[in-house]
Amino acid sequence: MDVNKEILKLDWEREPKGLYAPIAYTLAAGGKRVRPQLAIIGSQLFGGKDEEVLPAALALEVFHNFTLLHDDVMDKAEVRRGRPTVHIQWNENTAILSGDQMLIEAYTLLSQVPERALARVLRLFNKMATEICEGQQYDVDFEQKSNVTIDEYLMMIRLKTSVLLATALQIGAYIAGASEEEQQAVYQFGINIGLAFQIQDDILDVWGDPKTFGKAVGGDIACNKKTFVYLEAIRRLGERAPQNASVFGDPAEAKGERLEAKGERREAREELEDWYGQVLDDNKEKIVRVKKIFEQLGVREACERVVRDYTQRALDILETLPQNEASEELRKLAEKLLVRSV
Amino acid sequence: MDVNKEILKLDWEREPKGLYAPIAYTLAAGGKRVRPQLAIIGSQLFGGKDEEVLPAALALEVFHNFTLLHDDVMDKAEVRRGRPTVHIQWNENTAILSGDQMLIEAYTLLSQVPERALARVLRLFNKMATEICEGQQYDVDFEQKSNVTIDEYLMMIRLKTSVLLATALQIGAYIAGASEEEQQAVYQFGINIGLAFQIQDDILDVWGDPKTFGKAVGGDIACNKKTFVYLEAIRRLGERAPQNASVFGDPAEAKGERLEAKGERREAREELEDWYGQVLDDNKEKIVRVKKIFEQLGVREACERVVRDYTQRALDILETLPQNEASEELRKLAEKLLVRSV
Repeated sequence: MDVNKEILKLDWEREPKGLYAPIAYTLAAGGKRVRPQLAIIGSQLFGGKDEEVLPAALALEVFHNFTLLHDDVMDKAEVRRGRPTVHIQWNENTAILSGDQMLIEAYTLLSQVPERALARVLRLFNKMATEICEGQQYDVDFEQKSNVTIDEYLMMIRLKTSVLLATALQIGAYIAGASEEEQQAVYQFGINIGLAFQIQDDILDVWGDPKTFGKAVGGDIACNKKTFVYLEAIRRLGERAPQNASVFGDPAEAKGERLEAKGERREAREELEDWYGQVLDDNKEKIVRVKKIFEQLGVREACERVVRDYTQRALDILETLPQNEASEELRKLAEKLLVRSV
Repeated sequence: MDVNKEILKLDWEREPKGLYAPIAYTLAAGGKRVRPQLAIIGSQLFGGKDEEVLPAALALEVFHNFTLLHDDVMDKAEVRRGRPTVHIQWNENTAILSGDQMLIEAYTLLSQVPERALARVLRLFNKMATEICEGQQYDVDFEQKSNVTIDEYLMMIRLKTSVLLATALQIGAYIAGASEEEQQAVYQFGINIGLAFQIQDDILDVWGDPKTFGKAVGGDIACNKKTFVYLEAIRRLGERAPQNASVFGDPAEAKGERLEAKGERREAREELEDWYGQVLDDNKEKIVRVKKIFEQLGVREACERVVRDYTQRALDILETLPQNEASEELRKLAEKLLVRSV
C-alpha cells in the first residue's frame, strides 16, 4: 500500500478555502510518512488487511501534521520542509484554526476504522494524543528548569516522540487481531526506536554532516536546548545537576575520562553553563567551544552507545515477533538508525 | 442530574500543571452549561438514562469551552466570564496547547459513551466539530467581505452556534434510542432555537438593557460587525447589497418604511457604510447615529419578528415530540428567548 498516495488522495478542495487550503498545503509538503507506515506494518506483522488499518494510519499522519502545525506557531518557526510555515504563509489565526480542524479530521478518519475495533482504537489514540501534549508541555517547562535530569529528559522524549510511533504499531497490530502481549511487544519496539531516534537526532545536531542532516548543525547549541548530549555532559561534569545514573552501564566511565582533574571539570562546567546562558547572533565560536567540551568528556561515544542500546532492545523485541516481510521491514528501519549513528 | 457538579468533578489535578491548570481554570469559570443540559434533556425526552448520556454531555461542554479558549486567542479577547482569558492569565502558547488538550479531552470523554452508540455518536460529534470550525472561518471571511448576504449570515451562525445545540439534543436522543425521524426533529429544534438566540443576541447588542445584557451595549457597532441587524438595515436600504428576500414574509415592508424618499435612503446608506468603515476610540456618537438609522428603517421590529418566527418553528417541532417533563423544559427554554425579545 502506497501510504503517501493515500494521504494525497484525501480531498481538501472544500469550502471555506481559508480553513482547508492550509491543511492541503501542510499535508502536501511530504515528510517520510513513518507513522502511517508503522500502522500498516504493525497490521501486516499479524496478517491484517491493509485497507482495514488505512483509516487509522491516515488519522495518525494527519494528527502528526497537526502537532507540527501548532508546534510551529508556538516555536515561531518560519520554515518547515523547505516551505514557509502556515502562520507565515497565511497568519497565526489561520494556523490555529486549521490546526484545530486537522485534529478533528484525524478523529473523522479514525471514526472509519472497523466498528469492532473502534472503541479501543479511539482509547489508544486519545491516550497517545494526551501524552504528546504532555510531552510538549514538559519540553516547554524544561526550558525554564535549571536542573533537568536525564531521566526527566527521557520521559519527555518518550511522550513527545516515542508514543506516537509505538501507538501506530499497536493500533495496526490490534486491528489485525494481535494478542495483548503481541501489542505490548510492538508498542515497546516503537518506544525504544523512538528514543534511539531522538537521541540520534541530538547527536547529529552536534556531529552530523551538514550536507545530509537537513537542519543547521549546532542549532540546539545555539538555542541552548537541553538535549541528551548536553545533559550527559552536565552529568559527567557532576556536582550541581542531580546525580542520576546513566541509563545504561558505562564502561568508559570506569576507564577514566578525558578531564581528570577536579579543577578542570569545574572550569569546563562553568564554561558550558556560561555558553548556555547566552543568546548570540553569531554562534560559530560557541558551537566550536561547546563541541570541544563535549568531546573532551567523551559524550559522543556515550550517547552513541545509548542509541545502540535502545536500538538493540528494539531488535531483541523483534525476535519475539512473527518473522515475515513486515518484521524484516521493521528490522531495516531499526538498522537504518544504527547506520546513521556511525 | 446536576451537570455543573459533574463538570466540576472532572479531575484536572494532573501533571504537567502547565497543561492542565488552564483547563481547570476555564471549566471552573461556569457558564450556563446549556449544551450538556440539552444532551440530557434530549435523552430524557425519549426515556433514556442520564448516566448513559453523561460522558457525551460532558464532552460537548468541554468541546464548547475549547472553542471559547481558542476563539479568545484569535480575537485577542482579554476577559471571559469576568476573568482574564487563558492567554492573558498565562500566555498564548499555553492557550494553544491547553486548548488542543481540551479538544482531546472531549474525545476522551466521548470514548466512554456506551459502545453500542459509539460509532454514530463519534460521527455526529465530528460533523458538528467540523461545522463549527467552518462557521468560525466564515465569520473571519465575512469581516473582509463587503457584500455579505443575510442568507450567508444565517448559514454562518447556523454553523457557529446552532449545530452544537442541535447535535447535543440529537446525541442525547440517539443514545436514548429515538428514531431517525425523532432525532431529526430535536436537531431541527436546536437549529431554530440557535438561530433565534443568535439574532436575539444581535438585537440586544443594540437595544439591550446595559444592566442585564452582560456585554457592553453597542459593541458590535463599535467593531463594525456585520450582524443580522446591520445586514437587515443594508437590505432595507437596497441597491449595492444583493437583493435577498427577508427570510420570512415582512408585512411592515408593504405598509411602507420610515425612510420613503430614494435620496434619503442613499444618504442613510452612505452614512451607515461610512460609520462601518471607521475604527474609533470613542464610539458614543457612532452608536447613537447608527442606532437611529436602524430605528428609522424599522429594523428592530423586523429582527424581533424573525426571532419570534424561529422560536415558533422550534415550538411547532416540539409539538410533534413526546410530551413530558423534558419537553416542558425545552419549551421553557424557547419561551425564555421570546421573553428576552420583548
